[in-house]
Amino acid sequence: MTYLPPDDATRARLLDQVHFDDAGLIAAVAQQHDTGEVLMLAWMNRAALDETLRTGRVCYYSRSRGALWRKGETSGQVQTLVDGRLDCDRDAVLLLVEQSGVACHTGRRSCFYNAMRPLGLIEISAPLVSADALYGKN
Amino acid sequence: MTYLPPDDATRARLLDQVHFDDAGLIAAVAQQHDTGEVLMLAWMNRAALDETLRTGRVCYYSRSRGALWRKGETSGQVQTLVDGRLDCDRDAVLLLVEQSGVACHTGRRSCFYNAMRPLGLIEISAPLVSADALYGKN
Repeated sequence: MTYLPPDDATRARLLDQVHFDDAGLIAAVAQQHDTGEVLMLAWMNRAALDETLRTGRVCYYSRSRGALWRKGETSGQVQTLVDGRLDCDRDAVLLLVEQSGVACHTGRRSCFYNAMRPLGLIEISAPLVSADALYGKN
Repeated sequence: MTYLPPDDATRARLLDQVHFDDAGLIAAVAQQHDTGEVLMLAWMNRAALDETLRTGRVCYYSRSRGALWRKGETSGQVQTLVDGRLDCDRDAVLLLVEQSGVACHTGRRSCFYNAMRPLGLIEISAPLVSADALYGKN
């Protein structure tokens, strides 16, 4: 399945149907489209979702930096959109993506690597690449 | 895989490691453990996550009702926990669950049934059961 972007008018209409919260944000879950692996949860504002739907490259909103966060811009680990879904309340987004490399800034494929187990929090996956390799400090 | 609850002391230590937001909440994504289907996104406070980890039955926090929301208490569509994961920032939860029946209050298996397509928002799944059947109005 290849993502086909809506035209400008349709995209504007789509964005009008999204329920952003009081801060103008919506939670977005990224899932690898073919394996079903949940990769990460991040946030989007209207501009981020607009850019994502327009370009087919996932763009989040960084709450810490207060700016658009084009996933992979620094690390190269881009997410290519396959399909975007809104939930029943239209206040959460599910992004089916093709993840290039790893989703997590720690170098792991998925951010959800801390399992809550009988003995406490345990790491169930190891980094595939180093943060230095991802962020150009090597 | 069967969920094994941590004991009281371990659970308290786990909960201390979770980063709840300023409102005391954390976003929680529920995923069917064997098929990988993303079912819904909801919210938990500390008490909800505590109960979930203690009982192995998923309990959310309803922001609209301002109360614990024991998933399936009214509808019977319970979520049995298989594994709980925290992300790298410890501010999002992934719940691998066994979903009884349907996750969505509309009677659909997943809440993420609105696809953002070239012609606009389209529903890609139909209800499997009626809301009346789920909520006892039949």
